[in-house]
Amino acid sequence: MTANVEDDQRWLALAVEQARIGWSEGGIPIGAALVHNGQLIAVGRNRRVQQGSVIRHGETDCLENAGRLTARTYRSSVLYTTLSPCFMCAGTVLLYQIPRIVVGENRTFESSEDLLRSRGVRVDVFDDLECRSLMDRMIVEKPELWREDIGLEPSAQSRTV
Amino acid sequence: MTANVEDDQRWLALAVEQARIGWSEGGIPIGAALVHNGQLIAVGRNRRVQQGSVIRHGETDCLENAGRLTARTYRSSVLYTTLSPCFMCAGTVLLYQIPRIVVGENRTFESSEDLLRSRGVRVDVFDDLECRSLMDRMIVEKPELWREDIGLEPSAQSRTV
Repeated sequence: MTANVEDDQRWLALAVEQARIGWSEGGIPIGAALVHNGQLIAVGRNRRVQQGSVIRHGETDCLENAGRLTARTYRSSVLYTTLSPCFMCAGTVLLYQIPRIVVGENRTFESSEDLLRSRGVRVDVFDDLECRSLMDRMIVEKPELWREDIGLEPSAQSRTV
Repeated sequence: MTANVEDDQRWLALAVEQARIGWSEGGIPIGAALVHNGQLIAVGRNRRVQQGSVIRHGETDCLENAGRLTARTYRSSVLYTTLSPCFMCAGTVLLYQIPRIVVGENRTFESSEDLLRSRGVRVDVFDDLECRSLMDRMIVEKPELWREDIGLEPSAQSRTV
């Protein structure tokens, strides 16, 4: 499972496309793609708004869309995600022993990379401008939705309204 | 959020009921219940077989069935589960900062309790006989399904078939 920057960027672009679609649907712009031996298995995106889902983040939606795979398949796959995974998504990576994730950006949010690395997962971060722009816009336009997605209470400002 | 053993057993019984239903459906017998301030919010069960789902474990199915809750609600809730959570489900507990989980048993499977406790989650384990019996039967009758659910490859024996 050698890493090639051009290939990574191509797969990450599919995750970004999912994030864009999610935003156009009124949702949270985070997407993911699962790739096995140079073949796309599935894509996914955050569905909190679209499906009222609290467990379909970009990564988990992608894995759900991929269906029931063998352990061997997970263990030679790469998960691309536009944003650094939360603990739920990181835990899912650990459950299925996905050995490598590629992260579009981790400036907006980062909580689990130490945990992943401590358990042997390779985490490569791209600091992708479009991934950051999508989240920047999200946080300006829909800050409370974003806080909900990462388990935070509404901001003090909105709670006083 | 005081803990009362009788109350805990009553709520755990709802998780066990879900596990039994899952088994009767041909699925993996693991169930869960989410309780907030002495009120049941939702129950759930593993849906790998029933829905072809790789992310609906007992705990995550329960949280999904609960719908979009406020951060404050999660933070004063208790999650009851018949089996000690995998990393995905533990990560979900951490994401939403659920402060306490009650585990039916952890002899069949245990991987995340140290992680949960290290991050301040109270984990109470009951060593419940029925929870263990359900899993014992599962592992005897459908060992490969169980291995799939926790991200393991088929056993050497089944791989030679």
